[in-house]
Amino acid sequence: MWVFLNDRFVPKEEALVSVFDHGFLYGDGVYETLRSYGPRIFMRDQHLARLRRSADALGLTIPVPDTRWPDLLHEAMRRNEVGNDHVDAYLRITISRGAGEIGLDPALCPRSTVVIMTKPLHPSPSVLSRDGVSLTVATTRRNLPAALSPHIKSTNFLNNILAKRESIAAGTFDSLLLNWKDELTECTISNLFFISHGTVHTPALDCGILDGITRAIVMTLAEEDGLPVKEGHYHLADLRQASECFLTNTSMEVMPVSRVDGVPIGNGRPGPLTTRIQARFAASRHRFLEPPAS
Amino acid sequence: MWVFLNDRFVPKEEALVSVFDHGFLYGDGVYETLRSYGPRIFMRDQHLARLRRSADALGLTIPVPDTRWPDLLHEAMRRNEVGNDHVDAYLRITISRGAGEIGLDPALCPRSTVVIMTKPLHPSPSVLSRDGVSLTVATTRRNLPAALSPHIKSTNFLNNILAKRESIAAGTFDSLLLNWKDELTECTISNLFFISHGTVHTPALDCGILDGITRAIVMTLAEEDGLPVKEGHYHLADLRQASECFLTNTSMEVMPVSRVDGVPIGNGRPGPLTTRIQARFAASRHRFLEPPAS
Repeated sequence: MWVFLNDRFVPKEEALVSVFDHGFLYGDGVYETLRSYGPRIFMRDQHLARLRRSADALGLTIPVPDTRWPDLLHEAMRRNEVGNDHVDAYLRITISRGAGEIGLDPALCPRSTVVIMTKPLHPSPSVLSRDGVSLTVATTRRNLPAALSPHIKSTNFLNNILAKRESIAAGTFDSLLLNWKDELTECTISNLFFISHGTVHTPALDCGILDGITRAIVMTLAEEDGLPVKEGHYHLADLRQASECFLTNTSMEVMPVSRVDGVPIGNGRPGPLTTRIQARFAASRHRFLEPPAS
Repeated sequence: MWVFLNDRFVPKEEALVSVFDHGFLYGDGVYETLRSYGPRIFMRDQHLARLRRSADALGLTIPVPDTRWPDLLHEAMRRNEVGNDHVDAYLRITISRGAGEIGLDPALCPRSTVVIMTKPLHPSPSVLSRDGVSLTVATTRRNLPAALSPHIKSTNFLNNILAKRESIAAGTFDSLLLNWKDELTECTISNLFFISHGTVHTPALDCGILDGITRAIVMTLAEEDGLPVKEGHYHLADLRQASECFLTNTSMEVMPVSRVDGVPIGNGRPGPLTTRIQARFAASRHRFLEPPAS
C-alpha cells in the first residue's frame, strides 16, 4: 500500500511523521474523506473546498496547489489499485501543522505535513440497509461550537471517539450526540435526518454539526422529489415521534435507523420515504461525480 | 537530542510514528508535562497519577509499568544533559492510541505509542514576573466538559490553540477563556487566580478547567499563609474588581497578570499578595520534589 507523504508516494511502512509534528502533539490538523464510484471521485471540488475552509480557520497552510489535488488523488487510487471498475476508493487527506518545538504557537512549525491514504471502499453490509441500524444516545455531548467549531473538520476527534466508545459498549452501530442545549445534533461520522408527517427534518447547522456534503445533496434530492425539508432545532422527543430516521455520510450514503436506545423508530423497519430517498440517491449520484477521464 | 519511543531511546530525527497512529489521525492520546528543579522532579507521582487517570478515561493502555517511569524520566534527563545542577528539565510524556486502520474504534490499534521528550527549562524572563503579563479575553470558549472533559489531559488541544492564536494576534502573553456560561475558566496552559479584599479566588473545577497540580499547591500554600482561598463561579466583572491576578502552571509557577484586554488589574503592577505567594512557593517547593538520588 502506498501513502502520499509531503512530496512523494512511499510504502505504508515508511509513511512516518516526527513525534514533534503538532498533529501528533496537539491534534493540530484538518482532514477530509472522499470516495469514488469506480474511477470517478464524488463531490471532489466540494471536499477540497471544505478542506481549505477548515485549514483557513486554523491559519494552516496547505502546501499543495488546488490544481494538483485531482492528479494526486488519482495517482493514489491507481497505485493502490482502487477506484476502478472493480472497486470504489476511500480517500483520506490529512494536513497537519508539521514538526516544530513544543508549544502552541503555530509559527513554531515551518512546514505543514500532507498525507493521502487510500483503501478499497466496500458497500455497507446489505443487512444494515435492509434492517436499519441501532443508535445509542450518548452521554457525551457534541462539542460546543464556540469552543471548537464543527465546521472545522479537524483531527481533534476525541469528542466523537468518546461517543463511539459508548456505542461500542452498548453494542449498537453508533452514538447520537446531543448538544449543550439538549438538542439533536449528529452521529460520530454522519448527519441525522428524521421524517414526521411526510416532512424530512434535519438539525440546523447552528446546532453544532458538520456541514455534511451528502447531507446537502440529500436535502436537494428530497426537495426535487416533492418532499418538504426543514432544518431546525429538535429534541429527543421529536425523534421519538418520527416515523422514519436515517443517517448520511459520504461512504454509507443513506443508512436507515430502526432503533434509538432500543426503542423502535416507527415500526422498527426502514420506512418507505427513506427507501425512496435511497433509491433517488443511487439514481442521481452520477450528477455529483467528476467528469470521466478523457 | 534523545527521545524515548516505545521501548528505547532514539535520536530526535529517528523519533517517528506512523501516519496511521490514531494520535496523528484523531488526536487520540494523553500527555503530561513535568519539570525538575535540578535533578529532582516536581510532583512526580501526582503527574504520573494524572496521566493514568487521563488514559483510563479514554480506555487507553499505558504500556509502561508505573514503577518504571522514574528510571525512564531520569534516563531521559541524563541523556539530554538536563535536570542537573546547571539546568532544570522540562519533560513531556505522550501516550497515543498507536497505529491502526482508519476508524474510531480504539480496538483497531493493538499497541499504544509512548514518547518521552525532554528539553532545558529556563526560568521565565524576569521582566514578566516583575511587570506582570497581559491577557486577552478570547472569543473562543473553553471546551464543554460534557463534550471533552478538561480532566482528561488529552492531545486534542485545538481549543487552546485557537485561543492562543487570538492572543498572538493581539500581541498579549496569553488568552483567558470563558466557559459556555460566561464564567471565567483558565488560560491556554495555566490556571487563573485573582485576589479581592484579601481573599484568593480561583475558578472551581466544574467550570471546566484542568485540575492543575501547581494550582492545588498554591491553594495549600496560600491557606498555610493565612490567606482565605475560595473556589467559585466567577465572571469577568469579578476579575475587573480584583486588586491582583496571577496564573499558575508547572513551568512558570506563579506569574502575575497586570492587564486584561488592556485594562489594568489593580494598579497594573504585580500586587503584594501575589509577590508573597510567589516567595512562599519558592521557599516551599522543595517539599514537593522527589527524594534526592541515593
